[in-house]
Amino acid sequence: MKKIRVALYGYGNLSRGVETSMQYNEDMELCAVFSRREVKPLSGVASYHVDEAIAKAKDIDVLIMCGGSMSDLPVQSPLLAEHFNIVDSFDTHARIPEHFKNVDAAAKKSGHVGVISVGWDPGMFSVMRLYGESVLPNGKSYTFWGRGVSQGHSDAVRRVEGVVDARQYTVPVDSALKSVRNGEHKEFTARQMHKRECYVVAAEGADKEKIREQIVTMPNYFSDYDTTVNFITLEELKRDHAGIPHGGNLIRSGETSCGTKHVVEYSLKLDSNPEFTSGVMIAFARAAYRLYEKGDFGCKTIFDIPPVMLSKASHEELISHLL
Amino acid sequence: MKKIRVALYGYGNLSRGVETSMQYNEDMELCAVFSRREVKPLSGVASYHVDEAIAKAKDIDVLIMCGGSMSDLPVQSPLLAEHFNIVDSFDTHARIPEHFKNVDAAAKKSGHVGVISVGWDPGMFSVMRLYGESVLPNGKSYTFWGRGVSQGHSDAVRRVEGVVDARQYTVPVDSALKSVRNGEHKEFTARQMHKRECYVVAAEGADKEKIREQIVTMPNYFSDYDTTVNFITLEELKRDHAGIPHGGNLIRSGETSCGTKHVVEYSLKLDSNPEFTSGVMIAFARAAYRLYEKGDFGCKTIFDIPPVMLSKASHEELISHLL
Repeated sequence: MKKIRVALYGYGNLSRGVETSMQYNEDMELCAVFSRREVKPLSGVASYHVDEAIAKAKDIDVLIMCGGSMSDLPVQSPLLAEHFNIVDSFDTHARIPEHFKNVDAAAKKSGHVGVISVGWDPGMFSVMRLYGESVLPNGKSYTFWGRGVSQGHSDAVRRVEGVVDARQYTVPVDSALKSVRNGEHKEFTARQMHKRECYVVAAEGADKEKIREQIVTMPNYFSDYDTTVNFITLEELKRDHAGIPHGGNLIRSGETSCGTKHVVEYSLKLDSNPEFTSGVMIAFARAAYRLYEKGDFGCKTIFDIPPVMLSKASHEELISHLL
Repeated sequence: MKKIRVALYGYGNLSRGVETSMQYNEDMELCAVFSRREVKPLSGVASYHVDEAIAKAKDIDVLIMCGGSMSDLPVQSPLLAEHFNIVDSFDTHARIPEHFKNVDAAAKKSGHVGVISVGWDPGMFSVMRLYGESVLPNGKSYTFWGRGVSQGHSDAVRRVEGVVDARQYTVPVDSALKSVRNGEHKEFTARQMHKRECYVVAAEGADKEKIREQIVTMPNYFSDYDTTVNFITLEELKRDHAGIPHGGNLIRSGETSCGTKHVVEYSLKLDSNPEFTSGVMIAFARAAYRLYEKGDFGCKTIFDIPPVMLSKASHEELISHLL
């Protein structure tokens, strides 16, 4: 059987996750990496400058977009969806409708499939929200993130004067998690649902109290949360905080009749946020190719794709062994 | 907007769950109940003898099958799928491929949709297995059931001489659950994963030790498990064990690269097993009708249906608010 030929557009954390996971997807093969920089892919696959991508389109079944949501994907995904089936992990929630429209137009024009916003949130958490609301319409959904590293918040701490390096963890508040798991439908403030833990390496002689104060009062990032700041050495940061773990809990609870409660929880504990996201993207790359083969072109999300299309197993096997 | 007209075939626990949940699905309406017995539906909807069902087919968009998997559904679902779009909760795992084939043939012959085996297992747990295996192919899945009432095991206890009434709870073994949540990939025996708790009302003068012995050594049902037998009064049984709670944990764990682990858990805590199942069936009744409107006939499972079809919200709303 012909393997699905996958290429990567961009080469960073996500791409390396795809490289390591590809070995467990025997029906697919990684055939190229496109990057603006000169890179040496770990897997030994051929790498090319991004400008060469379109010329190679006929040898590639699906392009996995590995750029960032801030400035890369809004431009790259529609552009590349005119020439390739693509999968991206666009995660700026507020701009998803606009992104959908752009990718949809590009993909339909050329007869391709563009699967957007797959990963775990948006992605697996989104589809859990949808299943939850659909089967328990009389209820409420709660999303807890963490314990995990937030790249954006870590960057914000690094910008504080006197900070050499930093790592920020988002952590769900236990009492809120417990209440939601009990099926209570409280309204929470941001502070009541999540707290923030910072591990900070200060420059020699820096005023640690001033750094702490600047972090915990920072608007948008920290002022609405209970934030703890722990000063550690660079060695400790490298030793204890090198990973990019994340996770979270998506909880739907509701009643089907008076007093009859149900609590549905989907939870993730991930050693590596980008590697798990890569795993999701690979499964959706398979689906993108299958949709393309069916002639079902345009932009798709996790909501639009029958789960069977994600699996390397046949429909018959799935019905016999998994249902 | 025209509401989706739903009818029930059979009137038991499942049907009453549909009746109470229907109020939260404003795009649907319950329009008839068909039963072999004369029944007075709680919701006040009209009831008819099952023999009248086919004559009313043109007034019904989807028929929710509320019979049992042992002898009702294998016959009824294919028969009715020739005249209606149907949804059933067929749960005899080993016979699903055969049931699929029968419903598929009947539904395709007449241009209908038959959604089979929806509920939580098979159903929500099945689709979680599929998502789990697809995004973490290098891993292992574990299913824990309970703490919850098993109807089949309760019936088995009731058949023991000297037993007036009984309730059996299936309970996951904590140490196994912990090991799996830690991402360990142990092999467990039946006994290591689940234990069984029985609450038994003995007849006056009955030999309790003999009853206990007969229960815990019963092949297929109890002999492979650690079983505790608690003798209680009929009053206690009625007071403390009247509900039909259930639930479980579906856990997938795996690695994306050496030593990088991920644990995905989907868990349910249900006050009422049949009411939650009804909620799932209603959402899939909506999907059945939409598939029918698209002309996508035949037998479908939870694997085959794009999640968007389950929701009463529009694609646009879902992309804006849920993704």
